[in-house]
Amino acid sequence: MRVVIIGSGNVATHIAKALNQVNIKVSQVWSYHYENALLLAGQIDAIAIADLNQIDITADLCLIAVKDDEIANVVRELSKFKGVIAHTSGSVSLDVFENLTKNYGVFYPLQTFSKDKDVDFSNIPLCLEANNHETLAVLKEVAEQLSKKVEEINSEKRKILHLAAVFACNFTNHLYALADEVLKANQLDFDIIRPLITETANKVQNALPATVQTGPAIRNDNNTLIKHEELLIKQPEMLQIYRTLSNSIKKTR
Amino acid sequence: MRVVIIGSGNVATHIAKALNQVNIKVSQVWSYHYENALLLAGQIDAIAIADLNQIDITADLCLIAVKDDEIANVVRELSKFKGVIAHTSGSVSLDVFENLTKNYGVFYPLQTFSKDKDVDFSNIPLCLEANNHETLAVLKEVAEQLSKKVEEINSEKRKILHLAAVFACNFTNHLYALADEVLKANQLDFDIIRPLITETANKVQNALPATVQTGPAIRNDNNTLIKHEELLIKQPEMLQIYRTLSNSIKKTR
Repeated sequence: MRVVIIGSGNVATHIAKALNQVNIKVSQVWSYHYENALLLAGQIDAIAIADLNQIDITADLCLIAVKDDEIANVVRELSKFKGVIAHTSGSVSLDVFENLTKNYGVFYPLQTFSKDKDVDFSNIPLCLEANNHETLAVLKEVAEQLSKKVEEINSEKRKILHLAAVFACNFTNHLYALADEVLKANQLDFDIIRPLITETANKVQNALPATVQTGPAIRNDNNTLIKHEELLIKQPEMLQIYRTLSNSIKKTR
Repeated sequence: MRVVIIGSGNVATHIAKALNQVNIKVSQVWSYHYENALLLAGQIDAIAIADLNQIDITADLCLIAVKDDEIANVVRELSKFKGVIAHTSGSVSLDVFENLTKNYGVFYPLQTFSKDKDVDFSNIPLCLEANNHETLAVLKEVAEQLSKKVEEINSEKRKILHLAAVFACNFTNHLYALADEVLKANQLDFDIIRPLITETANKVQNALPATVQTGPAIRNDNNTLIKHEELLIKQPEMLQIYRTLSNSIKKTR
């Protein structure tokens, strides 16, 4: 089994390293920025290529982890590639490959990646989709060596997953950032709420979030809600977020 | 050292159990609902009292963990109590005790508690405040046996902390709940995004959240933002939350 990685961002980097760790050979790395391809290739004993024409057309799998809008452009340049081509995006449909290549699929890791932080791939849900059984089998063979959580998910459901992930991860991280802003403005350190953030995430590992909701909005504690709004009076944007989310919580009572 | 606990909710329960574990004697428990006082007292070898008049007036500390609005009412009934009286609320000022008792303070654990889930108290920031040095010393003596993170925080800063906690915990949990709603409506299980939630919280344990923001809004990926809005077209409330938070993230670019 030989894999080519297209891209050098967070997703490409983490997948490439994880493949390397389970001894699946990443033979080549391509990136829009050749320096970045070199950097990643160097870490996993692969070859950086500067031009998509140099791709090893006999590799088994080509994983595309570039910006959503550029997936189709990349695939157009891979017409000679004989193996399976798959992208790693949560929100791009399988259709993107139609009429561009023969055996194609999706290899979507439902996780948030940062370049400097290692993650344990064995717990990451890998959502697979393919245009035929043989292609799915290739994706499964790779995925099952990386993770215990391999799922077959069609494009429609994958888009839903991606949307849910925006709520549970991107928006959540932004709320952490807003909390940090509130603290900083008052000479308080983010460190003091880190244990709370950990516990909030831990609580829902064995419970559904609606059953463990706490805070003034779910208690309908209007005195506290008013006091908090007063504290935010000079930050209209944060005030709007406070009101919007508090009202949304109240409706679940 | 003997402590009386007023209340039998999540905060009262977890503090009482934690005190019991470090061998600080909880002698009595009072609650509006005597059955609940009995239940908690039974777990920590304490005595449940049905009437605040029965309070052990020679105990060293009385910790009040009732609803914010009811703290003053409880304190009024404790006029004969000789020890230190402290409440555990994030948003109630120290002033609540003024003219009602002599030695008073605040003992605020910055954490989210659920009845069925044990927490490790040693990592919970305990925010203390008192009206005199002797009272602060009593609170510190207790707090330092429970946690490594004991901080002196005045009422003004404590309110800020509480507000930040609403963003980082209560609102975050609600976003988990909205994610669950999206998944459920499409026959997908919450389990699939649990690893993502864990990693999102882990990422900010060693980084500031603004530096690890991911997702379509921070990438200014308008195609994906529009696709997500289309998926939410029939849920105007969730759509509003999606737009409000995405716009707020965009402004941090």
